[in-house]
Amino acid sequence: MSRYLADRMSKLGTETAFAVGAEAAEMASKGIKVYPFHLGDLNIPTPRHIREAALKALEDGKTGYCPTPGIAPLREALAEDVGKARGLNLGAANVSVQPGGKPVIGKFIMAFMNPGDEVLYPNPGFPIYESMIRFHGGVPKPYGFIEVEDGFALDFEAIEKQITPKTKLLIYNNYHNPTSASSDEAEMQRLAELCLKHDLLVLSDEAYFDILYSGEGKSIASIPGMFERTIILYTFSKKFAMTGWRLGAAIGPEDLISHISRFNVNDESCTAHFVQWAGVAALKGPMDEFYSMMETLRERRDVAVDLLNSMKGVRVSRPNSTFYLFANVTEAMDNLGMKTVEEFRKKILDETGVSFTTRNHFGSPLPDEKQYYIRLAYSGISVEDIREGLSKMKELLG
Amino acid sequence: MSRYLADRMSKLGTETAFAVGAEAAEMASKGIKVYPFHLGDLNIPTPRHIREAALKALEDGKTGYCPTPGIAPLREALAEDVGKARGLNLGAANVSVQPGGKPVIGKFIMAFMNPGDEVLYPNPGFPIYESMIRFHGGVPKPYGFIEVEDGFALDFEAIEKQITPKTKLLIYNNYHNPTSASSDEAEMQRLAELCLKHDLLVLSDEAYFDILYSGEGKSIASIPGMFERTIILYTFSKKFAMTGWRLGAAIGPEDLISHISRFNVNDESCTAHFVQWAGVAALKGPMDEFYSMMETLRERRDVAVDLLNSMKGVRVSRPNSTFYLFANVTEAMDNLGMKTVEEFRKKILDETGVSFTTRNHFGSPLPDEKQYYIRLAYSGISVEDIREGLSKMKELLG
Repeated sequence: MSRYLADRMSKLGTETAFAVGAEAAEMASKGIKVYPFHLGDLNIPTPRHIREAALKALEDGKTGYCPTPGIAPLREALAEDVGKARGLNLGAANVSVQPGGKPVIGKFIMAFMNPGDEVLYPNPGFPIYESMIRFHGGVPKPYGFIEVEDGFALDFEAIEKQITPKTKLLIYNNYHNPTSASSDEAEMQRLAELCLKHDLLVLSDEAYFDILYSGEGKSIASIPGMFERTIILYTFSKKFAMTGWRLGAAIGPEDLISHISRFNVNDESCTAHFVQWAGVAALKGPMDEFYSMMETLRERRDVAVDLLNSMKGVRVSRPNSTFYLFANVTEAMDNLGMKTVEEFRKKILDETGVSFTTRNHFGSPLPDEKQYYIRLAYSGISVEDIREGLSKMKELLG
Repeated sequence: MSRYLADRMSKLGTETAFAVGAEAAEMASKGIKVYPFHLGDLNIPTPRHIREAALKALEDGKTGYCPTPGIAPLREALAEDVGKARGLNLGAANVSVQPGGKPVIGKFIMAFMNPGDEVLYPNPGFPIYESMIRFHGGVPKPYGFIEVEDGFALDFEAIEKQITPKTKLLIYNNYHNPTSASSDEAEMQRLAELCLKHDLLVLSDEAYFDILYSGEGKSIASIPGMFERTIILYTFSKKFAMTGWRLGAAIGPEDLISHISRFNVNDESCTAHFVQWAGVAALKGPMDEFYSMMETLRERRDVAVDLLNSMKGVRVSRPNSTFYLFANVTEAMDNLGMKTVEEFRKKILDETGVSFTTRNHFGSPLPDEKQYYIRLAYSGISVEDIREGLSKMKELLG
């Protein structure tokens, strides 16, 4: 039947990390204990008041269609909350509610990229960027990160040398998956200047904006001149432990946002109605469960970082954001005489049950990469299991 | 900022019917009573056991990500239910859960249509078909309907004469919005033969498959040789009064469905997790609220049909499916000396508050059309208001 397939389907990518999840599930089904560091999902329940708001909306009959760009109370609450955290003066017209943060990626690409346009995007990075660029006929231009003392920094050289007259869009994921890189003010300012100089439109993927262990989040949209050229990808998934609710938004200049909303008419009509009322409750409700989630995540991070750094040939920083650790395992692989990070992953999984993804699940390695990395997510695993699993891994690596 | 807009955005359509809703809302906000025949939404609550299943799923922690093509219990329940109603032997692999029925349209087009391919689609018809065909570079080939004694029949001449070597896809919406046309066996057989002869892949939009007042639904996928070339668009929206829940599915041959699911990875990750459990409850639960909804709809239909046919210059059949009436108002317009159906719509709305859409909200009229039609939906209006509103309209028309 594949004779029916459109040509463009050969360019559609996927998240290869799902295969790791399937492998882990298969092991678990055989009764082998698996330590799930591969999941970017939270094993923390959605706060009670948010669930109760969904129930109330159901009882109140919020089960019919609602406006395509979202219900007014949610758009207003998002404008206020997101605007306040970023020092922006936003209104409902700046917000297009979406069934998750992810749909903003494809809609941004379709709305603003012509075939042949070049798009700068982070690699390693969320694999859907590259997939959507290619699928819609664009030219993906990957830029990487440089390992520095306290984490990772943008590889500006890679960005600058790839800008051509055809470069139209830049995807920027501060508080970055998988490296947990976060820009300091100087770095963000420098990136903004590049965007202004070359008239680039920016997708600022701020999925982890609120998953910060100290200080306050900063958005590139807050830099003078940038709001006009930035679409913020917002999601309820991480901050409110609502991954499976599928609730997010595109936020930006009114005229650009209106074009994003046109896709909603054509694609999913609207985001689930009563789920949007739960989103209002999330934004306006108490934040104690969020603070407690952050404390849980901090404890997990610290236990995992310390254990990883105690392993022979493993090196990782203590990131201030996200719930990912991007550990350098080049030496550990050398010690084991291994040539590929996939081989390393498989060995650790098979011999210890510790399941994680690698740099290769976040795009093809760039030609000049000489170091090997694995990504451990601590969003879906308890402190006890982190200790148990990583102790087994430490035993193996020495 | 529109300098950022991609060229393809000029080809993206919309549902112009939303403008009618906005107009009606504006009138209502001024205190004028509006009779809402423009809504394709239900003013009937989602059955209690379905709402309770959503609540239970929330309490059970079904708030994280779930598999991209849907949770296994929902895929299995859909395979069983949809298969049984259509005489097909289906399994979970034949089902890709979607956030509504509508997303199946765009995914079908993207997966199986190359730029330049010709696609047959109903016009009048759901406007998103044409929008998505154009947006993704296809050539839309509209086919219409012929008014017959008891409703509308497919215009086979229009279909046949437009088939060329470039015709690749056919969109078929039996139990049709807006005409309520339903194919008898001979018509469906004839269409299937055409598809087989010309090797067309079919999107069978079965959104109203269960909204039947007598007899049993029939799918073109049930005709020998057709299942292999048909993607069924399924939705929970109408049958279970779940429009705002956004739950549907693409159902068809396993290999084609797997490509549809690849979009879910790239687009929305998955459909809201706990909403899928509500879908399981819908399919496996008691059907008494469905039967009672159908009785309500039948009563509304009969009152509306009788009143419309009692108006001077208005003619409508009593359709056996959907909740739409596609009334011929050519004579009524003549009587009022009107040249456009939009003028007619506006006059009735302004003078009586009766709000409906017209043929023109479902695509541009075809060159040979000489009759004028309006569409009245009775899904969102009570029998009392149908009586009151249409009596005012009757007074105006005589």
